[in-house]
Amino acid sequence: MPRYALQVEYNGAPFAGWQRQADVPSVQGAIEAALARLQPGEHTIAAAGRTDAGVHATAQVAHCDLTRDWDPFRLSEALNYHLKPQPVAIRACARVADDWHARFSAGERRYLFRLLMRRAPATFEAGLVWQVKQALDVEAMRAGAAFLVGHHDFTTFRSSICQAASPVKTLDEIRIEPIEGPSGPELRFHLRARSFLHNQVRSIVGTLERVGAGAWAPEQVRDALEARDRAACGPVCPPDGLYLAGVGYADDPFA
Amino acid sequence: MPRYALQVEYNGAPFAGWQRQADVPSVQGAIEAALARLQPGEHTIAAAGRTDAGVHATAQVAHCDLTRDWDPFRLSEALNYHLKPQPVAIRACARVADDWHARFSAGERRYLFRLLMRRAPATFEAGLVWQVKQALDVEAMRAGAAFLVGHHDFTTFRSSICQAASPVKTLDEIRIEPIEGPSGPELRFHLRARSFLHNQVRSIVGTLERVGAGAWAPEQVRDALEARDRAACGPVCPPDGLYLAGVGYADDPFA
Repeated sequence: MPRYALQVEYNGAPFAGWQRQADVPSVQGAIEAALARLQPGEHTIAAAGRTDAGVHATAQVAHCDLTRDWDPFRLSEALNYHLKPQPVAIRACARVADDWHARFSAGERRYLFRLLMRRAPATFEAGLVWQVKQALDVEAMRAGAAFLVGHHDFTTFRSSICQAASPVKTLDEIRIEPIEGPSGPELRFHLRARSFLHNQVRSIVGTLERVGAGAWAPEQVRDALEARDRAACGPVCPPDGLYLAGVGYADDPFA
Repeated sequence: MPRYALQVEYNGAPFAGWQRQADVPSVQGAIEAALARLQPGEHTIAAAGRTDAGVHATAQVAHCDLTRDWDPFRLSEALNYHLKPQPVAIRACARVADDWHARFSAGERRYLFRLLMRRAPATFEAGLVWQVKQALDVEAMRAGAAFLVGHHDFTTFRSSICQAASPVKTLDEIRIEPIEGPSGPELRFHLRARSFLHNQVRSIVGTLERVGAGAWAPEQVRDALEARDRAACGPVCPPDGLYLAGVGYADDPFA
């Protein structure tokens, strides 16, 4: 069975998350239903990151198996045709080896978090950004974030239902980029790691927002990390601003 | 009665247009209803540009009269509170003279049109851009656009239901800016004039798209203009990519 890698963009707002569940719309379910229009029967696809409800992706990666050979471009076009009008789009498609796996072959995940700082409610980007009303202190947030980069026990920054075997992870980068976004001044958080714990990005951004607002000193982020206690975490921020923005593979199938 | 100028941002998708109409949602109606929450009774506001169904604004300007004095910032906050969750936001508010008029005092209107060039359907920006599948020839479009700048009879480029007394207008600028947008390569059309005819921007952009696709030679735009005949116009493009992006006043109330 030929295997295909799919690079997938989606607006997570109308979905209960990536993962297929009974009776609620999911991104996985939408793509599997589109595959069933091309090849009748059951389809089960795997993804690099199982995003939560309301979380978006600009470059999720998944793979699927089909019985017949497809030209990758024609496969992406056919899937996009059947995915409409749902806000899910196949941005790229590539034939991969039979043992290539979107999740297990991935060596890196990149997340983007968009935080909009303005008073008037967002109109064009409602659901696509986390909006706070006040300006935040970027330098303080960077100082707090610096304590989190590296190899740590992230128990404080993972949800209580996280199923990862270990809370120890290496966070390779947290870069905070102030930009003038389409709706006003934004902070864009760029996070990079081999893998993330459940709610790790939202726990980190929610905590750093408290630092930016002056409610926490940057050093309290270190204290929270060292506590290895979920209760020491700041407020978990909403999913609206979170995007799975890239997945790294030793051999990029879309290159 | 104190008069206030409002700078208004809205996503036009859920509205039948700016203008209040019976039984359908309108931007004017939404703002007037919010005003009625602050001061009971009927309110009638005037706007610089009466945008059509599905057309957006980043900086529409309107004015309202209220019986009591409001601090402009508090007025904008109160209106935003009552406008939620509709995608309409007051971005700025200023006290103006009693004879200042959002429409009649305006000396310039600026429109933005966003055209996205990519094959995969837009997910985050569905309804916010006009999407075409192929790349367009920007230089050819610029050559075609150049025929339209200046003082002309724009009968070809106005809708048959346009109520303007004269089809003669001065188009001060059409600038076509290719950018790498959030969802892919875009052309952004910036148009500027004292005033526009009904459907003028969409008629112009739809015609220029035909030039960019190679279906029309640039000189055919001149021929179409000179025909002074609605039938000579190219296809009118959808409202999705159109934004009222600014209104100029001799004395800017928001400066």
